Amino acid sequence: MKLRVYVTLKPGVLDPQGEAIRHALGSLGFDGINGVRQGKMIELDLLEEDAAQAEETAKDMCEKLLANTVIESYQIEPA
Amino acid sequence: MKLRVYVTLKPGVLDPQGEAIRHALGSLGFDGINGVRQGKMIELDLLEEDAAQAEETAKDMCEKLLANTVIESYQIEPA
Repeated sequence: MKLRVYVTLKPGVLDPQGEAIRHALGSLGFDGINGVRQGKMIELDLLEEDAAQAEETAKDMCEKLLANTVIESYQIEPA
Repeated sequence: MKLRVYVTLKPGVLDPQGEAIRHALGSLGFDGINGVRQGKMIELDLLEEDAAQAEETAKDMCEKLLANTVIESYQIEPA
């Protein structure tokens, strides 16, 4: 089954990529922007068909590789 | 209002980042992976409170900056 993992910087962690996008949008004439944060989205296509089991595996993947849990949080959703 | 923009590579476009993740997961002992694709998630916090208007602005931002529409597609959702 397919899962989507969203990895985002925790609140308070400086996000230079997000700031760069915000500035670039400003130079293009977009105003009224309070803030921009950039995160990662990872689409996992697993052989496992059991939803609970697949989510458990994805969580394990996040803890071990996909997210740096010191500064990032993650969210797993069925795709 | 807050919006989430998901930018993903179009199907068929080679995704070296996704492949790298897949290999890394393999070396960590995770098997049963059909595929991994990596995309970007951008959280926009706009002053605009009207949902339709904010989505229109976000679409414009995607076309002009956030996505390379030749190889990427985007999806906008309220956060």
